[in-house]
Amino acid sequence: MPEIVQTVLPNGLTVVAEPIPGASSLAMTLLTPAGLASQPVDQQGVAPLLSEMICRGAGGKTARQHSDALDTLGVQRSTDAQTRFFRIGATMIGSKMKEALPLLFDMARTPTLAEEALAPSVDLSIQAIDSLADEPQRRAMLELRSQHYPDPVGRPPVGVREHLENMTVDTVRKFWFEHFVARGSILGFAGSFDTDELLATVNDLLGDWGGEAHPAHGQGAGTGGVHHVHTDSTQVHIALAYPTIPDTHEDRVLQQAATAVLSGGMSGRLFTEVREKRGLVYSVYATYAGQKDRGDVLAYAGTTVPRAQETLDVLSGELRRLSEGVNQSEFERAIVGMKSSLVMQGESTTARGASIASDVYVFGQPRSLEYAASEVDAVTLDQLNAYLKANPPGDMTIVTLGPEPLKA
Amino acid sequence: MPEIVQTVLPNGLTVVAEPIPGASSLAMTLLTPAGLASQPVDQQGVAPLLSEMICRGAGGKTARQHSDALDTLGVQRSTDAQTRFFRIGATMIGSKMKEALPLLFDMARTPTLAEEALAPSVDLSIQAIDSLADEPQRRAMLELRSQHYPDPVGRPPVGVREHLENMTVDTVRKFWFEHFVARGSILGFAGSFDTDELLATVNDLLGDWGGEAHPAHGQGAGTGGVHHVHTDSTQVHIALAYPTIPDTHEDRVLQQAATAVLSGGMSGRLFTEVREKRGLVYSVYATYAGQKDRGDVLAYAGTTVPRAQETLDVLSGELRRLSEGVNQSEFERAIVGMKSSLVMQGESTTARGASIASDVYVFGQPRSLEYAASEVDAVTLDQLNAYLKANPPGDMTIVTLGPEPLKA
Repeated sequence: MPEIVQTVLPNGLTVVAEPIPGASSLAMTLLTPAGLASQPVDQQGVAPLLSEMICRGAGGKTARQHSDALDTLGVQRSTDAQTRFFRIGATMIGSKMKEALPLLFDMARTPTLAEEALAPSVDLSIQAIDSLADEPQRRAMLELRSQHYPDPVGRPPVGVREHLENMTVDTVRKFWFEHFVARGSILGFAGSFDTDELLATVNDLLGDWGGEAHPAHGQGAGTGGVHHVHTDSTQVHIALAYPTIPDTHEDRVLQQAATAVLSGGMSGRLFTEVREKRGLVYSVYATYAGQKDRGDVLAYAGTTVPRAQETLDVLSGELRRLSEGVNQSEFERAIVGMKSSLVMQGESTTARGASIASDVYVFGQPRSLEYAASEVDAVTLDQLNAYLKANPPGDMTIVTLGPEPLKA
Repeated sequence: MPEIVQTVLPNGLTVVAEPIPGASSLAMTLLTPAGLASQPVDQQGVAPLLSEMICRGAGGKTARQHSDALDTLGVQRSTDAQTRFFRIGATMIGSKMKEALPLLFDMARTPTLAEEALAPSVDLSIQAIDSLADEPQRRAMLELRSQHYPDPVGRPPVGVREHLENMTVDTVRKFWFEHFVARGSILGFAGSFDTDELLATVNDLLGDWGGEAHPAHGQGAGTGGVHHVHTDSTQVHIALAYPTIPDTHEDRVLQQAATAVLSGGMSGRLFTEVREKRGLVYSVYATYAGQKDRGDVLAYAGTTVPRAQETLDVLSGELRRLSEGVNQSEFERAIVGMKSSLVMQGESTTARGASIASDVYVFGQPRSLEYAASEVDAVTLDQLNAYLKANPPGDMTIVTLGPEPLKA
């Protein structure tokens, strides 16, 4: 396998690039330290609003000219505000790189942020909040985040309606100016390219980018506990979280394996116990949400009113039962599943580009798929069971959406 | 590029396989003529019910043993009932092929379909219907299908509650026995394999499979027209359809290009006119649903109550305005977008495996990506505009979900 190249420009921008033999596509992920956590406490929504406005003209081009130019190159792109970073993602045919990158980088460096783009962008941002009424599963998970995580980690990715209603174009420009900066940004590429040519192009286009990341804002601790949101529905959505080790902990792979025993494949415990044996829910999963400085297990189940209490009981019961240990066969299936997922990731330029950019933030450097696979191979059943015994779930944050509260 | 191999076994099973250089994964799609259209008119739901039960034991293995065995090999699989076919899909590391295929084929040929699996499977199937209450976008599109398409094309993929409630294990077994047959089934592979070894394995395992496809059931024409479904929500979901040429028509690529002008990329007309200029909707798209014997344009917009009427007016207006023609720049962007999508498809073994299996049904043979790209390259702006002028949208079927009907 070719090497993954990592370089830091003099202005503090980290660039990481993994050529993938046989690929024709090229995927790019640009992370700038302009995430939800960087929003002033009373301007929540400025980051998602910017993810609308940044697509409406840049580099002296109107919205129309700019999106026409990218579509003429066949560049698929997306923007969103995550907790720590604002992400600009793009996928293109590798041969279009030199034409596409100037247009994409213009979005970060010279967005127009025109006065007339504000009103429709605010409208769309508020509609995104309103549309949660019709997406109760997503709403349950967002409510869980806001109850479980301390600010700023639990901030709603859609923003806060009242803050959005008061936003001016100056608010947006100020946020962009302060947080779209070279130092602290990470640029990841994976797929079809000549590494020297790619790095030279990036250096030409971004070498004179400046600025430093500002510290993130935050104002408190998560409340945890049990919360109910009333909805007039025959369905109940159950969301559940408890804290565990962060992604930077040496036992991270053990935590991933534990979640795979619960929720990896059709033989996973949740699928078997909650869904298959009892027919309780149509949808159930648990996932390890590892971050640089914290980690959590999040779980979800969607069911009907009469089955809701039993579903919650079985779901939280299975999460707690994990500390009693797993057997050899469960362990082996979890390991095989994790390694298969790594192989699949290696065949997607988009997944690889996003993954190595995230690695730079979390671990300080990209991890090759071979390295990740060797980490998975190195763990043993005894290690996993010792880890599970030493780390039973503590207090769980529980959010339910439905006509009646449940007994936690 | 290596050749795509197509072969028909003496029992009538068509096998099609595309090796993908550099891939490590292997994707399989098995289509059997046991789709929604094959369900007896008063047993709608037996196909989705079977997609539950077929995962609960096969080849003499219990549900647990069978899913453990597949997960031990790291095989990701899924089953669903489409209009014409029942699909068993799987993705695995290529080296696991010889161990995985017997387990996967057992699902089709020797599923246990045990009495005790019926009740939880029926429960889950009915929950899938109930959960539509909390997925109004999906509900709007299903309602559109049932109004727009003649039976059996418009049948609900979730089945009919009353039919499901009356199902016995004998109903399921009879449906499986009659419709899981070799002749008329299509088996597609893409990714990492030795073609000779793969075909020999398939021949060993499925050479003695028998049976013939039974004709599909159907009882009438789509009603079309304008339909409103009342919901107590601040959101309105608009779904819209009109008939156009089938996938087998020589102008198919022109119809695809027309839809790309509407809905391909951020410079697409719908995105620009409905979303960006007017800020009307958070989500809007149009798609060409080409089938072997019919084709339709389907469109969707999700918005709020005060914006709903204008959204419907602009959406249907843009669909009709297409017949006035598109300009050179729109045409070029559509062509580039379509060709980029083909390149992306070529990097996904799952997408390629599914695509060549579908090709066998629609066109009688698989189409290489090079061939598909050459078809796209061959069309001209003049051809597209002549096609659009000659094929203006006729009557539209419109379904709205929301608190009030709209004016069509």
